[in-house]
Amino acid sequence: VSQLPDQYVDSHQEEYVQTLRDWVAVESDSSDVLRRPDCHRMMDMTAEKLQAMGGKVELVDIGVQELPDGKTVALPKVVTAQFGSDPNKQTVCVYGHVDVQPAKLEDGWATEPYNLTDINGNLYGRGASDNKAPVLAWIHTVEVYQDLPVNVKFIIEGMEETGSNGLDAMIVAQRDTFFSDVDYIIISDCGWLSQRPALTYGTRGNCYFFAEVEGPKQDLHSGVYGGTVIEPMTDLIGILDTLISPSGKILIPGIREAVAPLSDEEWKMYQDIEFDIESFKSKIGVSQLMYSNKVDLLAHRWRYPTVTIHGIEGAFSGPGTKTVIPAKVIAKFSIRQVPNMDPAVVKKQVTDYLYSVFAKRKSPNKLKVTMIIGAKPWLADTKHPLYEAGKAAMKRVFNVEPDMIREGGTIPIAKTFEDVTGKSIIMMPIGGFDDGLHSQNEKMSRYNYIEGTKLFIAYLHEVAHLKKD
Amino acid sequence: VSQLPDQYVDSHQEEYVQTLRDWVAVESDSSDVLRRPDCHRMMDMTAEKLQAMGGKVELVDIGVQELPDGKTVALPKVVTAQFGSDPNKQTVCVYGHVDVQPAKLEDGWATEPYNLTDINGNLYGRGASDNKAPVLAWIHTVEVYQDLPVNVKFIIEGMEETGSNGLDAMIVAQRDTFFSDVDYIIISDCGWLSQRPALTYGTRGNCYFFAEVEGPKQDLHSGVYGGTVIEPMTDLIGILDTLISPSGKILIPGIREAVAPLSDEEWKMYQDIEFDIESFKSKIGVSQLMYSNKVDLLAHRWRYPTVTIHGIEGAFSGPGTKTVIPAKVIAKFSIRQVPNMDPAVVKKQVTDYLYSVFAKRKSPNKLKVTMIIGAKPWLADTKHPLYEAGKAAMKRVFNVEPDMIREGGTIPIAKTFEDVTGKSIIMMPIGGFDDGLHSQNEKMSRYNYIEGTKLFIAYLHEVAHLKKD
Repeated sequence: VSQLPDQYVDSHQEEYVQTLRDWVAVESDSSDVLRRPDCHRMMDMTAEKLQAMGGKVELVDIGVQELPDGKTVALPKVVTAQFGSDPNKQTVCVYGHVDVQPAKLEDGWATEPYNLTDINGNLYGRGASDNKAPVLAWIHTVEVYQDLPVNVKFIIEGMEETGSNGLDAMIVAQRDTFFSDVDYIIISDCGWLSQRPALTYGTRGNCYFFAEVEGPKQDLHSGVYGGTVIEPMTDLIGILDTLISPSGKILIPGIREAVAPLSDEEWKMYQDIEFDIESFKSKIGVSQLMYSNKVDLLAHRWRYPTVTIHGIEGAFSGPGTKTVIPAKVIAKFSIRQVPNMDPAVVKKQVTDYLYSVFAKRKSPNKLKVTMIIGAKPWLADTKHPLYEAGKAAMKRVFNVEPDMIREGGTIPIAKTFEDVTGKSIIMMPIGGFDDGLHSQNEKMSRYNYIEGTKLFIAYLHEVAHLKKD
Repeated sequence: VSQLPDQYVDSHQEEYVQTLRDWVAVESDSSDVLRRPDCHRMMDMTAEKLQAMGGKVELVDIGVQELPDGKTVALPKVVTAQFGSDPNKQTVCVYGHVDVQPAKLEDGWATEPYNLTDINGNLYGRGASDNKAPVLAWIHTVEVYQDLPVNVKFIIEGMEETGSNGLDAMIVAQRDTFFSDVDYIIISDCGWLSQRPALTYGTRGNCYFFAEVEGPKQDLHSGVYGGTVIEPMTDLIGILDTLISPSGKILIPGIREAVAPLSDEEWKMYQDIEFDIESFKSKIGVSQLMYSNKVDLLAHRWRYPTVTIHGIEGAFSGPGTKTVIPAKVIAKFSIRQVPNMDPAVVKKQVTDYLYSVFAKRKSPNKLKVTMIIGAKPWLADTKHPLYEAGKAAMKRVFNVEPDMIREGGTIPIAKTFEDVTGKSIIMMPIGGFDDGLHSQNEKMSRYNYIEGTKLFIAYLHEVAHLKKD
């Protein structure tokens, strides 16, 4: 480019926003199999974009997904791409995903969730921040450089929001091919903690459960049958109520005991982080949090497990009234994973516990507990040169020392990358602290999108000067 | 008619089925305000049909419905009609409703719920049995007679499934006009207990509650925020779990104490009813019921209260996974009312109890309990001549003694008719015991629809011979 990189980025801002609009318009909700064609289209669009830039691109078939009814459906292919193969240069591999969480206007969105809408410099749309804009920022970074200072690879998937089904096996299979020359893995699938830019060194994992209680063969009229049948919903509410205490204590035996104790060093780190509890409270609109001091709050956000009950499928969920006894109800709940929990052990702890609680009810209904997602937590060494390079790039673009933070959410693949490839990983977020991931009115600000692109450009420059790992 | 009435009915069967198909095609779901235009259309169609038959018809404006957000929406008008005004004849008033419960194909219907589908003589469709076919059977009854043996009035409403909003006031207002010359009220909004035809002498009432727990100002990502916020869903599950014991005992103080004790005479009546527990179990597809003997089972179906939790609005209810902390969740539950419960008292008992249970959780979230429907139970004297006439008509058409039964469900208006007009009421069901009211695959059999029409024809003949009340 003849312009300086920053000027080039600024002058292409409208084009970048339009590309994001095109991507957000694709309803690539990986949790809904009816939207699978959109997911396939999203992977094709990603591959075409990278191909048009001159990358060596592959759409990797990762097989099929088995549905609860025994049928199968094709998984979205994984897109890999390679830009440059100079053995004298560092090789980074950028991971991202282009699938999204469900979203419907009637959930309480102020704008159509799949129509990217600019309001005062904020770009509202499902997937804008999680993770389409960061993926595009990396793509634009490669576009800006005429001569890349490092070799850049991409691995972009379409099943992240439902547990990266099929990706683990693909990474294992390509360990000695695609990943053989990769030095570092970069993930930008998270956000800052405050207005201050941040680097992320840990994420929680997630075990997502379905607890299904099945009774009558179909829904029944609650007037005609109420009092004669043992209702599945009553049973389900009864067992859900045994998961967690009002004060947030997980009641499933063995879970809390597995958690690594909080070290003095950690406690000190948490003390130093800039975090304003009052603005956090006002942002989410609550008068009281689970903990009233910063360390407890951050620790329970990042490094302790938690149980969330997301909802119930099969019961009446519409507005208004319906006098139904639902025949089959499926609770969805998840437990965030931290070191040293093991999803395989958690699966057994949860299922054993719920079956034993249910048995005490002596109900004739049938309980089935299944773990749908079992993603491990991830923790990096903050003293690694990758993080030093990150701090330097942050300093250059934003002129601040970044906060060193962890992430309460899950990037399921981080742990797999580490275990399989043995490479070091850095998480470099560009999302804002108030982007509303997974909720209504998700957004990415123009500022974070554009300055984030500049950060990535600066970061490749810094990484080029690292010694090979 | 030149043919005998029964032959006339038989020869018009296809026409009757087609009219039912036209009526079922209107999605007159009164619980969903977005369907309100369909409800209005359904009332218009009903009025036009009665007008075309020469009735004196009115569409009575009963005002507006206030929505939770403070807005208002017009209630479906009530259709009244009059056929004949001979002061020497008895005057009956037939009550029915043409609104329906919600239904969606994806709830598990084998056929499109609003496309009446004939499978082996069963006519599947939402509202087929509850209450469109019975209303049409009464309309056809009037059509069959060239010279009605009694004066017939109709009062047809469009809000029955959500508590007959506005109808009470309308009945009070027309007590001395429309209802002044009415001798008896006939309701056919229920079903038989078995293959054996039945007359119904009691119904349960219903108190329908919303319990709303509101926390953060919008849904949150369960990874990013889990562990820091006190989740509304956990609070809601916690309070719902205190409503009812695993063995079906209502735990709200004062409810059970208000119930009229079971008399020896009642016990004897229940003993004599033909009711096969095994076929009841196999029909609904359960291996075990709440009670294992006939009297307990029928008593808890008809004359004891029960709590049903219908579902939760605002939580994740789709298939698949979503890692959300719902910000505002609204449980829908109802308590069936029996003599001597009083909905106003029950409202206070339930709200006081839930607020006190919630207070113990010390949650910063906000609980709001509201009673949406408060319908009283109804109980008739089975020795009244109306019932004797009913037995005679039953004998004539079906050649059996009918079972004398009660109804677990609610016909909210029965008690109001009784209290306001002082007239006697009979419930004469023609729906089958397996019609699936309020659940998937609701149906009305051709047999019940057609023979039911003949029953109504015979009944008017019997009523003509009663002494004026």
